[in-house]
Amino acid sequence: MKKKIVLAYSGGLDTSVLLSWIKDTYDAEVIAFCANIGQDDELKGLNAKAKKTGASKIYIDDLQEEFARDFIYPMMQPEPFMRPVLPGHQHCPPSHRQAHGGDRPGRRRDRDRPRRDRQGERPSPFRVDRCRSGPRDRNHRPLAGRAFPHRLPRPREMIAYCADKNIPVQASAKKPYSSDRNLLHISFEAGILEDPWFDAFAPSNKDMFTLSVAPEDAPDKAEYVTLEFMKGDCVAVNGKELSPLQVMKTLNKLGGKHGVGRVDMVENRFVGMKSRGVYETPGGAILHFAHRQIESLTMDREVMHLRDSLIPKYATLVYNGFWYAPERLALQALVTESQKNVSGTVRVKLYKGGIYAAGRKSAYSLYNPHIATMEADPTKAYNQDDATGFIRLNGLRLKVGATVEAEVNAQAPKKAATATKAPKAKKAAKKK
Amino acid sequence: MKKKIVLAYSGGLDTSVLLSWIKDTYDAEVIAFCANIGQDDELKGLNAKAKKTGASKIYIDDLQEEFARDFIYPMMQPEPFMRPVLPGHQHCPPSHRQAHGGDRPGRRRDRDRPRRDRQGERPSPFRVDRCRSGPRDRNHRPLAGRAFPHRLPRPREMIAYCADKNIPVQASAKKPYSSDRNLLHISFEAGILEDPWFDAFAPSNKDMFTLSVAPEDAPDKAEYVTLEFMKGDCVAVNGKELSPLQVMKTLNKLGGKHGVGRVDMVENRFVGMKSRGVYETPGGAILHFAHRQIESLTMDREVMHLRDSLIPKYATLVYNGFWYAPERLALQALVTESQKNVSGTVRVKLYKGGIYAAGRKSAYSLYNPHIATMEADPTKAYNQDDATGFIRLNGLRLKVGATVEAEVNAQAPKKAATATKAPKAKKAAKKK
Amino acid sequence: MKKKIVLAYSGGLDTSVLLSWIKDTYDAEVIAFCANIGQDDELKGLNAKAKKTGASKIYIDDLQEEFARDFIYPMMQPEPFMRPVLPGHQHCPPSHRQAHGGDRPGRRRDRDRPRRDRQGERPSPFRVDRCRSGPRDRNHRPLAGRAFPHRLPRPREMIAYCADKNIPVQASAKKPYSSDRNLLHISFEAGILEDPWFDAFAPSNKDMFTLSVAPEDAPDKAEYVTLEFMKGDCVAVNGKELSPLQVMKTLNKLGGKHGVGRVDMVENRFVGMKSRGVYETPGGAILHFAHRQIESLTMDREVMHLRDSLIPKYATLVYNGFWYAPERLALQALVTESQKNVSGTVRVKLYKGGIYAAGRKSAYSLYNPHIATMEADPTKAYNQDDATGFIRLNGLRLKVGATVEAEVNAQAPKKAATATKAPKAKKAAKKK
Amino acid sequence: MKKKIVLAYSGGLDTSVLLSWIKDTYDAEVIAFCANIGQDDELKGLNAKAKKTGASKIYIDDLQEEFARDFIYPMMQPEPFMRPVLPGHQHCPPSHRQAHGGDRPGRRRDRDRPRRDRQGERPSPFRVDRCRSGPRDRNHRPLAGRAFPHRLPRPREMIAYCADKNIPVQASAKKPYSSDRNLLHISFEAGILEDPWFDAFAPSNKDMFTLSVAPEDAPDKAEYVTLEFMKGDCVAVNGKELSPLQVMKTLNKLGGKHGVGRVDMVENRFVGMKSRGVYETPGGAILHFAHRQIESLTMDREVMHLRDSLIPKYATLVYNGFWYAPERLALQALVTESQKNVSGTVRVKLYKGGIYAAGRKSAYSLYNPHIATMEADPTKAYNQDDATGFIRLNGLRLKVGATVEAEVNAQAPKKAATATKAPKAKKAAKKK
Repeated sequence: MKKKIVLAYSGGLDTSVLLSWIKDTYDAEVIAFCANIGQDDELKGLNAKAKKTGASKIYIDDLQEEFARDFIYPMMQPEPFMRPVLPGHQHCPPSHRQAHGGDRPGRRRDRDRPRRDRQGERPSPFRVDRCRSGPRDRNHRPLAGRAFPHRLPRPREMIAYCADKNIPVQASAKKPYSSDRNLLHISFEAGILEDPWFDAFAPSNKDMFTLSVAPEDAPDKAEYVTLEFMKGDCVAVNGKELSPLQVMKTLNKLGGKHGVGRVDMVENRFVGMKSRGVYETPGGAILHFAHRQIESLTMDREVMHLRDSLIPKYATLVYNGFWYAPERLALQALVTESQKNVSGTVRVKLYKGGIYAAGRKSAYSLYNPHIATMEADPTKAYNQDDATGFIRLNGLRLKVGATVEAEVNAQAPKKAATATKAPKAKKAAKKK
Repeated sequence: MKKKIVLAYSGGLDTSVLLSWIKDTYDAEVIAFCANIGQDDELKGLNAKAKKTGASKIYIDDLQEEFARDFIYPMMQPEPFMRPVLPGHQHCPPSHRQAHGGDRPGRRRDRDRPRRDRQGERPSPFRVDRCRSGPRDRNHRPLAGRAFPHRLPRPREMIAYCADKNIPVQASAKKPYSSDRNLLHISFEAGILEDPWFDAFAPSNKDMFTLSVAPEDAPDKAEYVTLEFMKGDCVAVNGKELSPLQVMKTLNKLGGKHGVGRVDMVENRFVGMKSRGVYETPGGAILHFAHRQIESLTMDREVMHLRDSLIPKYATLVYNGFWYAPERLALQALVTESQKNVSGTVRVKLYKGGIYAAGRKSAYSLYNPHIATMEADPTKAYNQDDATGFIRLNGLRLKVGATVEAEVNAQAPKKAATATKAPKAKKAAKKK
Repeated sequence: MKKKIVLAYSGGLDTSVLLSWIKDTYDAEVIAFCANIGQDDELKGLNAKAKKTGASKIYIDDLQEEFARDFIYPMMQPEPFMRPVLPGHQHCPPSHRQAHGGDRPGRRRDRDRPRRDRQGERPSPFRVDRCRSGPRDRNHRPLAGRAFPHRLPRPREMIAYCADKNIPVQASAKKPYSSDRNLLHISFEAGILEDPWFDAFAPSNKDMFTLSVAPEDAPDKAEYVTLEFMKGDCVAVNGKELSPLQVMKTLNKLGGKHGVGRVDMVENRFVGMKSRGVYETPGGAILHFAHRQIESLTMDREVMHLRDSLIPKYATLVYNGFWYAPERLALQALVTESQKNVSGTVRVKLYKGGIYAAGRKSAYSLYNPHIATMEADPTKAYNQDDATGFIRLNGLRLKVGATVEAEVNAQAPKKAATATKAPKAKKAAKKK
Repeated sequence: MKKKIVLAYSGGLDTSVLLSWIKDTYDAEVIAFCANIGQDDELKGLNAKAKKTGASKIYIDDLQEEFARDFIYPMMQPEPFMRPVLPGHQHCPPSHRQAHGGDRPGRRRDRDRPRRDRQGERPSPFRVDRCRSGPRDRNHRPLAGRAFPHRLPRPREMIAYCADKNIPVQASAKKPYSSDRNLLHISFEAGILEDPWFDAFAPSNKDMFTLSVAPEDAPDKAEYVTLEFMKGDCVAVNGKELSPLQVMKTLNKLGGKHGVGRVDMVENRFVGMKSRGVYETPGGAILHFAHRQIESLTMDREVMHLRDSLIPKYATLVYNGFWYAPERLALQALVTESQKNVSGTVRVKLYKGGIYAAGRKSAYSLYNPHIATMEADPTKAYNQDDATGFIRLNGLRLKVGATVEAEVNAQAPKKAATATKAPKAKKAAKKK
């Protein structure tokens, strides 16, 4: 009986070559596996394509709910303004990625590789472990070292290979950029986008966008949306309880209608290059904005400062593919603890590409107008007289510091010369 | 001859009471000083008001250029998306603040006090040092301890005092909120804004806004603006060389026209309370957005991560009034070093409340499309084959970690019990 | 029936005055409560003293095991070399502290006050809540505002009060410093120690030390000790299972015998002053050193870097009394996650004041000599050839950066002048 | 005329092979260059060895003073207790390293490679730039790709190559470990040290140590040393002005005599492995300890906390060879600012392996006993009454937080169910 090899497959150039090459080289039955994490159109015709490329079977598992719940939601908790679009984009179930080669002819590929392989170090949550042992094992790294000795094949070589083998990869040459899509967003890069001076939002480039209308084409009337949060997770939209996947779908639709969540940015890749990417993340942008709003009302100030100082680290880990690394898990433990009271309701206004706060409320609100009222009963929580001591002691070290500096300066040059006994030591050293 | 006391004066309730009280109590000539840092309307009639309250003279110095150059510009360098509005609001020349009592009947006052007094610990850059020694000296703290023994007076007491003394402080009671303005922005708080569920951007609240139109009322046609940066500072707008003050005025106008820079947020005050504030910061929002764009193109990835991780600290220091504290100076040294190559041109698009990237370019651009091209000559800078070693070594610790965990688990329960010799110690302790 | 008030009582000057004053002022029955957290000698005669001062009853609860398990142990997990002595010293059960006035005539008092009162904001784990509502309520702050109007009494006033009331507080005037002791350590400060140039370890000052001999007087022969760790906690010493309290007692004895754990330091107090303190922490020093050793063998590199970067924050929180603050809890969640594999055995050598590593081993060891061997089979985990790609990609951003800088410089002054179009803007501004 | 190639040369196995190989392959004249940074014995006979291996000339430049001044001193400023031994060890002038192959048969090599090559990205301060372009250029990477195709040669292959070519590399096989020495310290690793349970300080291993006696063999009488600091740099020892190099030599001698600065640790290498290293760093240990002492007296608390939180980052950068990376330069800017008042005198006591504080003083001392005295005049700097407001406001957010939590809990389950309207959403999601 032939041996069976499971391959994480996307239908793009890399995995198509891989499928064919593995089948031929190992004389094995290749079973393709694809995780549906919201690629949508990109999944169309995948079944037929896999078969035609040589797969004996293909499994397309709908993992969208898991993706929303276990990846998008945790990632929303620690993120700052406008940042989630970054790591959000990168992440998808590791098993899918690990042998996913990308169907894009552009430069994304180098970034994907580290993620793909490294994720394999940890048990995959989606159980396609067999395929991991394949491409990572030295003797099984087909693309680097056998048919294409000593190096990874270049795209043109892979295209030639496909033509030769009659593998159905229509070069996505028609579009002057490459794109990648999942439940959280669609990204565009390469091609015409390589010039960072190019205006991606220009009317002439309108057709590139997929999930959202241009702000100019959005309705002239604003729309209000309410989101309910429970321990940092959105659990209802406009009063209706929804699962994480339903939340994402609902917000993607609402955001897309009003043109929100478009971002054009120059990013820093793990491998050390900068890269320009354009994103549509309509639902993610709303979710993130609203989450910050409810946090601002319910999260302790010092917890927020601490969490915020760790966001660059967290974002870098996710962006670079270290989702399963122990340091991400340690950070997440802190983040989870920070969310315990992040519950309540947020109302946002969507208008012509913008998201605006239109109200927030919570049983856990730490904002208590009564504390702050200037006319307050002095026996109550906040007493203005307390400010005197607070001011003086917070400034004490500054006062001492300024006094000491003034004293030293006043005694200069005399004192400066004797502050330490050896002011000329450096010169002495240099003379030699 | 009567002694002279210089008082930092704003014309508001606190400093009006202070002026009158100092004059009476010390039988002194009081000279009022006010730094013009862009209060605009708030300065109208100040001269007459000071005289009527009892000042022998009033100096209103135009310090707007210094304020823009020495405070707003340095503050723009380290800030993240959407954050500059926060600390920007708080800061103003310390000499001004230190005896500024605030003319706002709302709750801002408690936050101002720490800043005001603490700033006094350091030599003022604006040479009104005499006044500092006044109100901070124990025997000279008029508001806390004499006329109003043992505590600061409540607003209603100050209002009564003014009525009694015929001091011209028109209670700004007509407006159902309080406001504070400078070159960087105008802030609103208290009154109707105390309910965080209240929609500050609702059409019914339109009249509150001063520097900007509502997005709904902005032009239907987008406008493009280019900004030139030199070492992190904006030095020209739309091709025209401008001073920092001119930049701020130009951008305030452009931003105001398109309704950008409006923010509604729940903040965390130094004294431990949350507070809801609404800001208009049209010029600051554009400046900040554009600065991030040029940084993304020219700043090293690791420098950016390092700098970003320190932003919450920097923002907190500025917000709480520690501008002259040595830790702010140490942070600024790092920030200044980070900006050395942040030079180039940014184009932004303003449309209905939104700011969008429309291009960035620089002689210092670290984004080099040639590095990344997949078909690149393998002998050039980026070689895809390098990714193999990069991936493997970056994942090595994860692989070792996973292997060790798997081994320990495989030998459990046997091994778990003997991993350390004393698993029962805790229980032992609890028994006692 | 008389009302009953429970007072956290130490027998020192402050709480003695407090006991008497509360009893007189409220005509109440005062019940003294003292938590035994290892004060040892300081508890002798406390019963009689309390009675004589006017208490109707005194409860001295032995909370040493809880103190070791719930405070010392968690605090050991995040701490770096030589630091635990700092926060360790400060902490003790909040209920004890909150009304503890300190029996030291020195300057420690100011530091204690913030801790004491603030801890009261959270439910005490030791259930003496009643007493908290006493001294913090405005009308119940006896020491500040009644018998000693408008301010806290000075020590000499309290001594006079005690003499007047016949309260048995023997001024600890015999000793030229003050001290404070618990299970983790004893601290000394004030008096002769106020001069930071004074050599606290000089033979002439030998008698001050309580828990340890001088290194000079320690045995001439080194002693080896083994400690077993389980998830970051020490569970056995020299092969014998022990409870946290037993561990502390055992290590205090061993460390004291060999003169380890003596530290002389200038600290930074919460209120803004520096302070000089000398500590003996023989057991804590060994525990901490050994914990670092087992971590070095079993903890992931990146987790360690992350944890280490948060130590200054953690240490500050504990030192300043924010044990129950939500940010400490968030940090602890991260720390706990970091300790999950910190299990194994450490051997240390104690000799004349020094602690030396003499071996560590663990089933969770991440140190695998086989990975690193240079002659290793290239198909195995570590492959030297991987280093090439690793080096090149880690250096890529530096190479690009250096190239760009070189290019810009090469084209200067021409290019420098045109890098941005407006190099003269600043000068322009200054002219005005 | 033959072309000339300059090679950074140490006389070890790697660079010996390199020298011979370059000469043969390119038919070039090879000029060896070696930077003397304190290798001492390791430099003996280097001249003859280079000639015999085929070099036309050898330059051994004495760069010890520069090494002390420009590398050791800056590195001492940011470092925490006991850490400098780590990065200190790794660093040496990049030009030396970049083609240095290591003469050690052990496993250090992988760690050296990244440093060596990456340092080359930046202009070398020691002007041997020509050699950099050699080994890094793809066509000039002799060891990886030509004689030893497709990979780096293994040590045994290099030894065979040397035997074949009659190159004088005596395998340092006599010693059961490898060592590396510079002015800051000597390190040992590999061989018998590979077992982390092995006691490196056992009497049986005494002969390994080179710079210091064992604590057991140190004098029975303590010795006191005073160090003068100026802006964070040591400028005099025992009252005598010294250059950085002289300071290092003096302290190495004193420390070595008393057995201080020995450390046995498990480190984390850049490439992802753990490694066990034993260090002797007698002078560095004293310098570092004394530097911390003078900092504790003169450095602002918040500056110290900030700096300390960045030490793990700084240490990692130096350890991994990123000395010239822009993020290290940015950190150094902050560190330099932090040292501006770090001037004064420190006295330490050396005894049997231990370093003890015996006094510190400074004109910049921020420790002012007068501030803190409890009996102080209340009108002076520190006023105990201020503590009341300080305590209350620092605890305000905790009080509000505790109150809100208590309220929510009190109304549970009623309120808990309605805190947000959609508590069942997650379950709903899971049902599907």
